[in-house]
Amino acid sequence: MPRPPNPEVRSRLLSIGRAVVHEHGFNNSGVQEITQAAGVPKGSFYNYFDSKESFAAEILEDYWQAIELRHGPILYDARLKPLLRIERFFASLTQDHREHGFVLGCLIGNLSLELASDSDDTRGKLADVIGRWEGALATCLREAQERRELHSEMDSRQLAAIIIEAYEGSVMRAKVERSGKALERFGKVVLPLLLH
Amino acid sequence: MPRPPNPEVRSRLLSIGRAVVHEHGFNNSGVQEITQAAGVPKGSFYNYFDSKESFAAEILEDYWQAIELRHGPILYDARLKPLLRIERFFASLTQDHREHGFVLGCLIGNLSLELASDSDDTRGKLADVIGRWEGALATCLREAQERRELHSEMDSRQLAAIIIEAYEGSVMRAKVERSGKALERFGKVVLPLLLH
Repeated sequence: MPRPPNPEVRSRLLSIGRAVVHEHGFNNSGVQEITQAAGVPKGSFYNYFDSKESFAAEILEDYWQAIELRHGPILYDARLKPLLRIERFFASLTQDHREHGFVLGCLIGNLSLELASDSDDTRGKLADVIGRWEGALATCLREAQERRELHSEMDSRQLAAIIIEAYEGSVMRAKVERSGKALERFGKVVLPLLLH
Repeated sequence: MPRPPNPEVRSRLLSIGRAVVHEHGFNNSGVQEITQAAGVPKGSFYNYFDSKESFAAEILEDYWQAIELRHGPILYDARLKPLLRIERFFASLTQDHREHGFVLGCLIGNLSLELASDSDDTRGKLADVIGRWEGALATCLREAQERRELHSEMDSRQLAAIIIEAYEGSVMRAKVERSGKALERFGKVVLPLLLH
């Protein structure tokens, strides 16, 4: 009889597995490596996840929730003007990339390019997470438009999408160069241009 | 005694292997799948490439040369104003993505996120290819600045980098959504804003 699932093991598989996938890529991280890093028997992986693809969807959710917890509050800081909140939010995200030497990239971007063509489940989760990110930025942008602090009359959701896409491209470049130059360009040139 | 290398086999491994990697990702495409698709014995792969990583560098070079051949001439079309050349170049690239249902993404972007953390050789090749792309765009941008058709006084190389990074982010989004919306945004909103 299989042992009942242990929430602590599940949580360890998610957090350690997420780190393994973020560092080495999804297809480069076998269930063997993930379970070994988490210190659990290989066979137990499938007690917690239906498939490696459903594991991918869960680590994406986990990653996004960690970002929301760590950086999200900046977007709702009532002391700051909405556009300044957006600038600080991205500066804070970029600081995370800097702390890892720009090596890891964004897990959302990494899995977008690695899995979106092969796995419809992961693709759906990616679209969902990016949509939530877009929604949070769009709320700030609309507030800025209402306060007439944003001159652009572009639809807030569309502008949020452009900001995210430009940011993801900069994170990609930073990963290739192992340097913060592209992210500095984003913060100093691209974002001010878009938030004019 | 090993048979002498056959240039035709090498060329087939590169073109078919590139298609396999572009569709399924690098780590998801074994030497077995690549040689099988190319119709050559598995063992012969290493007669042509020192390692799978050096193969990655060669397919990147091959991919970039194919882009230069197919889309590059637009950037040098003396009948067109330089900014219009840039717009048409990206419209032409986007048409390629559309023909593949936005499923594949850009091989440069895909390998940037999949390999840049694990393979220094691939990372060097990626930086090289992106640098050449940037150089070609920067030449057009400088010409536009000299002709006073570009108001931005931003360094042409920096502006070229921003354009490429925003484009790569849009290609990523298009892959997640299997839709051209992000690339239409790039062509209709982002590029005109950057080329103002």
